[in-house]
Amino acid sequence: MLSRDVRDRLLAVTTATLTTVLLKKGIRRSYMRGPKPLSTAAGKRVVGEAFTLRFVPAREDLATPESWSAPISTRAAIEAMPEGCVAVVDALGVTEAGIFGDILSLRMKKRGVAGVVTDGVMRDLVGVVGTGLPIWCQGAAAPASVAGLTFVNWQEPIGCGGVAVFPGDVIVADDDGAVVIPAALTADVVAAATEQERMEAWIVGEVEKGAALPGLYPMNAETKARYEAQTKSKR
Amino acid sequence: MLSRDVRDRLLAVTTATLTTVLLKKGIRRSYMRGPKPLSTAAGKRVVGEAFTLRFVPAREDLATPESWSAPISTRAAIEAMPEGCVAVVDALGVTEAGIFGDILSLRMKKRGVAGVVTDGVMRDLVGVVGTGLPIWCQGAAAPASVAGLTFVNWQEPIGCGGVAVFPGDVIVADDDGAVVIPAALTADVVAAATEQERMEAWIVGEVEKGAALPGLYPMNAETKARYEAQTKSKR
Amino acid sequence: MLSRDVRDRLLAVTTATLTTVLLKKGIRRSYMRGPKPLSTAAGKRVVGEAFTLRFVPAREDLATPESWSAPISTRAAIEAMPEGCVAVVDALGVTEAGIFGDILSLRMKKRGVAGVVTDGVMRDLVGVVGTGLPIWCQGAAAPASVAGLTFVNWQEPIGCGGVAVFPGDVIVADDDGAVVIPAALTADVVAAATEQERMEAWIVGEVEKGAALPGLYPMNAETKARYEAQTKSKR
Amino acid sequence: MLSRDVRDRLLAVTTATLTTVLLKKGIRRSYMRGPKPLSTAAGKRVVGEAFTLRFVPAREDLATPESWSAPISTRAAIEAMPEGCVAVVDALGVTEAGIFGDILSLRMKKRGVAGVVTDGVMRDLVGVVGTGLPIWCQGAAAPASVAGLTFVNWQEPIGCGGVAVFPGDVIVADDDGAVVIPAALTADVVAAATEQERMEAWIVGEVEKGAALPGLYPMNAETKARYEAQTKSKR
Amino acid sequence: MLSRDVRDRLLAVTTATLTTVLLKKGIRRSYMRGPKPLSTAAGKRVVGEAFTLRFVPAREDLATPESWSAPISTRAAIEAMPEGCVAVVDALGVTEAGIFGDILSLRMKKRGVAGVVTDGVMRDLVGVVGTGLPIWCQGAAAPASVAGLTFVNWQEPIGCGGVAVFPGDVIVADDDGAVVIPAALTADVVAAATEQERMEAWIVGEVEKGAALPGLYPMNAETKARYEAQTKSKR
Amino acid sequence: MLSRDVRDRLLAVTTATLTTVLLKKGIRRSYMRGPKPLSTAAGKRVVGEAFTLRFVPAREDLATPESWSAPISTRAAIEAMPEGCVAVVDALGVTEAGIFGDILSLRMKKRGVAGVVTDGVMRDLVGVVGTGLPIWCQGAAAPASVAGLTFVNWQEPIGCGGVAVFPGDVIVADDDGAVVIPAALTADVVAAATEQERMEAWIVGEVEKGAALPGLYPMNAETKARYEAQTKSKR
Repeated sequence: MLSRDVRDRLLAVTTATLTTVLLKKGIRRSYMRGPKPLSTAAGKRVVGEAFTLRFVPAREDLATPESWSAPISTRAAIEAMPEGCVAVVDALGVTEAGIFGDILSLRMKKRGVAGVVTDGVMRDLVGVVGTGLPIWCQGAAAPASVAGLTFVNWQEPIGCGGVAVFPGDVIVADDDGAVVIPAALTADVVAAATEQERMEAWIVGEVEKGAALPGLYPMNAETKARYEAQTKSKR
Repeated sequence: MLSRDVRDRLLAVTTATLTTVLLKKGIRRSYMRGPKPLSTAAGKRVVGEAFTLRFVPAREDLATPESWSAPISTRAAIEAMPEGCVAVVDALGVTEAGIFGDILSLRMKKRGVAGVVTDGVMRDLVGVVGTGLPIWCQGAAAPASVAGLTFVNWQEPIGCGGVAVFPGDVIVADDDGAVVIPAALTADVVAAATEQERMEAWIVGEVEKGAALPGLYPMNAETKARYEAQTKSKR
Repeated sequence: MLSRDVRDRLLAVTTATLTTVLLKKGIRRSYMRGPKPLSTAAGKRVVGEAFTLRFVPAREDLATPESWSAPISTRAAIEAMPEGCVAVVDALGVTEAGIFGDILSLRMKKRGVAGVVTDGVMRDLVGVVGTGLPIWCQGAAAPASVAGLTFVNWQEPIGCGGVAVFPGDVIVADDDGAVVIPAALTADVVAAATEQERMEAWIVGEVEKGAALPGLYPMNAETKARYEAQTKSKR
Repeated sequence: MLSRDVRDRLLAVTTATLTTVLLKKGIRRSYMRGPKPLSTAAGKRVVGEAFTLRFVPAREDLATPESWSAPISTRAAIEAMPEGCVAVVDALGVTEAGIFGDILSLRMKKRGVAGVVTDGVMRDLVGVVGTGLPIWCQGAAAPASVAGLTFVNWQEPIGCGGVAVFPGDVIVADDDGAVVIPAALTADVVAAATEQERMEAWIVGEVEKGAALPGLYPMNAETKARYEAQTKSKR
Repeated sequence: MLSRDVRDRLLAVTTATLTTVLLKKGIRRSYMRGPKPLSTAAGKRVVGEAFTLRFVPAREDLATPESWSAPISTRAAIEAMPEGCVAVVDALGVTEAGIFGDILSLRMKKRGVAGVVTDGVMRDLVGVVGTGLPIWCQGAAAPASVAGLTFVNWQEPIGCGGVAVFPGDVIVADDDGAVVIPAALTADVVAAATEQERMEAWIVGEVEKGAALPGLYPMNAETKARYEAQTKSKR
Repeated sequence: MLSRDVRDRLLAVTTATLTTVLLKKGIRRSYMRGPKPLSTAAGKRVVGEAFTLRFVPAREDLATPESWSAPISTRAAIEAMPEGCVAVVDALGVTEAGIFGDILSLRMKKRGVAGVVTDGVMRDLVGVVGTGLPIWCQGAAAPASVAGLTFVNWQEPIGCGGVAVFPGDVIVADDDGAVVIPAALTADVVAAATEQERMEAWIVGEVEKGAALPGLYPMNAETKARYEAQTKSKR
């Protein structure tokens, strides 16, 4: 479980900063291609452990409205989601079949799910937005998931938007999209990201005053000394 | 011609519901890939018979500004559109040449066209939006249609967004996009969709009260009995 | 350098009109695929000479945070931009690595850059929007440019959104996107575009009064005579 | 396990015929997009039960040469493959990282694997072809799987080329590509396909003699009677 | 009808030369994206008037095996094809549903069709190749056309591979693919192409002898004079 | 200049092995997406220093047959190519305009160019193949480069198939495609690759004898000891 402290510190860090920190640690593939904030997520940042859902393509004998009542179904998956998790859904990038509508979104909201991240789309957009659940996706399409997808399981490793996501990885999503932090790297990433945010805030101030970029961003030794002198007392 | 009753009942049904009803009748390909509401269409639902327009790719000897004066032209097609129709335009998914600008959009508005649905884009977006005509498309591009497309005819079978559309099919478009109802299935679809909307509204109420999904959505026999008991008197 | 007069006249012309004028002069490829206005650019028109930046794909030994301090870097390019230019960036259409964040955008704003046009994306969207710099791009992504791109030079010929752009070409961007006017054609294009805007405004008035399109748009000889009689006195 | 009789009868049926039979039973999505025969498979037909392998996208901390020694690895999966199976590999359609090279292909050949079907590619093409193992894929690329993919498991439901494949489904592959027969439908499909092959062979003979298509293909009642009269004695 | 002389002269000209001649006449879009020679067409050149066929996307109520018996069907279209024509089929670029199998290909061969050009694919590849009919397409797929396409008409304007094709346009296809010559330009194109082939053959000879390219290809005035002196007597 | 020894050792190493060695050194992006061997390159391996050519998209005022005579032209670039180089051409992945035809290919052959690698296509395929020049590309198209591309320079940094290539990098191409070795890493890569080829050859022998994969590939400590004992004497 994600500690309150880690969550709070990540809520103060942009996904832009997180990807730079991860890249410096050798992880170039952390950003999901596709998920963008719906209006319910605009201007927000959501942090939580990944709860994964997995689809495969639709086959007409499997992907039917009847399948919604099966023991393995999106309904059952939702009932297994813990409070505070981020549901991450591998929808194979399909944009013509909505994985969740208003009813399922409302139920996730009721269960305390922190947010939804998917490389697919929602359906019944007006109803979904009405629930207020923060969602990052590729938009909306009218058809139900079974028009293009067969649900197969939850809490398995998945791909989402070209990135591997394992249950328990940490998800951070904001206006720039959604990022995965490998569970094992979380502590290191949080520490480095917090420091980087502080440095960049100071640099913005310098640029506001008219400073040129070379030597400032990234800092050369002289700038770094100046930065440290000015900020030492405040830490 | 679409009867007033059918139109009114479809105006009360989401495209999400319609695609589910169509899928249950064996039609999985009813939702057009591409058309999304411009600001003039946001929050609206439009219903009407399809009036189709067909383009082929541009060839420099055919796709010229001079072609706009030809007897077969988008201008002539617009003058043939009946009041209340939905213009459905096969633009081959081209997103770099706008099929209609402000002048053509204004004329359609004047003629009482209910809306425009296309897998292509508009041009002169500010002017088009100024007409108030509800439009579902892939956005806007500056170039005229002739930069990428040659207009060939109207009221022929077309493809639009990966779906077959025949003149006289019924089009319904809302925030989730645009759906085609085959003309021959319209009556059946309207009946089933109306009932499904009622059921889903009741289910939303249950979820609001905290009910879990299994057995509720879809309903098992017990839930169905309870639903019918509660709603019988109201029908 | 773009004269004040040319700039002012282009500020009164839509990109839609410009592409039609260019097409009549044999230039069909002038509209960039990809760049769309961010909120800072919505409803605006920007005109300026192209200042080009060029990326190639990322290679892990080259595309590193250290490379940001090199003499050839996006930082150095920004310091070379003249006031009033439009930065046009060939980002190879990459949508998963942001070419500029808040700091670089702020510095361009401070230097008086008129706007940014790219087939790539921004990062740190909130910060970038906060600078107010008008930007046309494909949206935002969290990762830095080095996650997908290696910067190689500025003021070279580039491709952007499927169009060739040379330093000194004239860029015009508005709600429909961004257009390149070859430097050598600028004077001719401005003259023809100004006249076409006038004609189309008159046509809109006719359609508002209920006129049908054939013979009006494009004008036949009779309509043209009427138009000239009515507008002669006003020129 | 696939019986010898079913296997032998399927070896006499084209994938073209199988897809038509499946479509008549309501299954339109049975053909995998992507897998095409390498030279080792050209002119051959392979039939077997699906043994599935699943990848997710690469992440640099997981997709490493070291991962090849893990208990969950492509190596371990290969050692679990039963004789006569068809390995079906969900490679996410990645064409820039080869899932198997010469060593793994040789080991599958030694174990009696009937063939490999994937929406990805091979690597070390010369070596792979040298093993003689029949393979349907999208071609070859030099990099190892870890350049783009992380292996996660075997014998799970997967998608391959836009089609759902479950362990135990029946795979048939020939020069037209690869088809999945849902396990539960196999007996019915085999019976109908055998009869259809017989009919089409007779029709080919008629066309050879110069017959026109209408009424012949598909057969009208009269042609059907003639066909049945001529072929009755031979069954 | 294409005259014997025009056909013979076009049989001596490459599609590469034809596209250059067309480009010099202002036609940049003459080459179809997608059609490549099957083994029956490899090393051949086919010339003929276009006989067009048009598909729209499949809809399950229309695209059925039963539809093959309808008056508007691919079967009926084939029976309407004149000897010597080239069947050009707009298959919407669909590569997962074969438009013709062995029976239809055999019938076209029997009717004297010169060749088939399509942006789609064949099915039953072995059988199709067995007929010897020269075909340019994107390869093969097992499913029948109805798995992805609904046939709507023949001898209408179509798009094929991003190019407009009208009935009566002239089609030339060889190892580089397929090109459309607008009917009205045919005579001019044939004349210019014949001369260009002659010039290029002479240039190849010069390069064989070790000549450098500048001034030779394209010829400057001096080279042109030499070429004309050397070839005058042979014309 | 590439030494004879490095060239000879690279001629004995597969591109598959090279990508694995590069990945172990942190370079995941070394393999070009797109280039595949034409028949002149099939079964061959080519090694040489990269000589780069760069195109931007076509614009009708620049990309003309007249441009072929300009001082900056593909013709001039070819005359600047040193013997033994590999021409690497950034064609922006365009597959509808051939960058070189028979005449240019013949001239490169005459100049001793070792091979051509591009993410684009050739034209006049029969003529190009006739020259015998080894070429890796995406196939062929009839139109000339100016139909889609404007040539801008040679010996600049480029992207080719999603990979950065700098003049002087080492290119190796074989049946699996083409790989870039950063100039600075060449010596290290050659040493490691030679050893890895030796190890893999020994492993193939073990698999031929029936050995299972775990512990063998990759080798565990025990296998490694056995390998070293067996091969020590032979080195």
